Amino acid sequence: MARTPTGAAVLQPEVTQAITDAVLRELADQGYGRLSMEAVAKRAGVGKSALYRRWRSKEEMIAAVVTEFSVTRATVADTGSLRGDLRETMQALIDWLTHPLFSRILPDLVAEDARNPERNRTVREQVGRSRREVGEVMLRRAVARGELPGDLDLEMALDVLAAPIYWRLIVRQAPAEPDYVDRLVEYALRALGAQGG
Amino acid sequence: MARTPTGAAVLQPEVTQAITDAVLRELADQGYGRLSMEAVAKRAGVGKSALYRRWRSKEEMIAAVVTEFSVTRATVADTGSLRGDLRETMQALIDWLTHPLFSRILPDLVAEDARNPERNRTVREQVGRSRREVGEVMLRRAVARGELPGDLDLEMALDVLAAPIYWRLIVRQAPAEPDYVDRLVEYALRALGAQGG
Repeated sequence: MARTPTGAAVLQPEVTQAITDAVLRELADQGYGRLSMEAVAKRAGVGKSALYRRWRSKEEMIAAVVTEFSVTRATVADTGSLRGDLRETMQALIDWLTHPLFSRILPDLVAEDARNPERNRTVREQVGRSRREVGEVMLRRAVARGELPGDLDLEMALDVLAAPIYWRLIVRQAPAEPDYVDRLVEYALRALGAQGG
Repeated sequence: MARTPTGAAVLQPEVTQAITDAVLRELADQGYGRLSMEAVAKRAGVGKSALYRRWRSKEEMIAAVVTEFSVTRATVADTGSLRGDLRETMQALIDWLTHPLFSRILPDLVAEDARNPERNRTVREQVGRSRREVGEVMLRRAVARGELPGDLDLEMALDVLAAPIYWRLIVRQAPAEPDYVDRLVEYALRALGAQGG
């Protein structure tokens, strides 16, 4: 049986998955600054070469893993009403921000960004853009249904929907009570100027 | 002339000020985790004993400095109208969050909190409570003037006022354009259910 040559272009998906998991765990435990390729490789049970076959650097590896994790979790809610869509979108946002690993990863990345805004600009913009596009689709549909005014300030609207959740759960470390999403949806409907909200 | 004995209870305010500045600079540059008492003392041009005469530990020192910095910046706006008060409060919040040192310190503290929620619970609650009390005074006055409904959900209202600024300036690292505060005030007035807003 022929051995797979070192440096072959074939990347085994299960190895990629093991590395991805290891990156998320190391990011959560050590943070961006202290994460090392050695520790990721060890945690994933692979050699460092397996990492460098996939990404050219630590920065590129983290960018790819964080982007994939975040973008796949941004799905368009389509319940037929703005209230229903908001409820679903906010719940998905809560799940993203309170994910046992990501709830530690995102604040660490934000802290790194504050120290060095240029380094991760591309990742930040990529994740932000794809998540915001999903929110835009939802809001534009509500405009089309006549639920929201046609001159909606989309950029501000998207801030106003996402921000309170990050502020409460991550910055304030305050709990989200069972009725939290419903209360927040009522605020959001008013803030957006929803008709008959 | 008598020498001041070591360990005397008299704490010179200018030394306290130099140490406070050094703590803020070290926090901004190194972050909570890497900050050392040695580095703070060196930066302030004092001995470590000057630090320990004031605070028992690194944790206590940081708590005191961050609390004082944050609480003194929370002032009650009283312009006579909710719109005016909101504009002033939001501008003060922007100034707090974009302070050249604090804009790096707060995200780092949030990241530390995500890893270890218990350690700074007291500071976080103290800073949060005093800042939120100031916001409550503003909102209750607006209720008394008939500008806001009497059954206002105060806790949610305070989240909704502060959150978009942190989200935009710190998490998204997006700019606040010249008309940003005015646009945000309009959103906030609608969200709060302001009469004739």
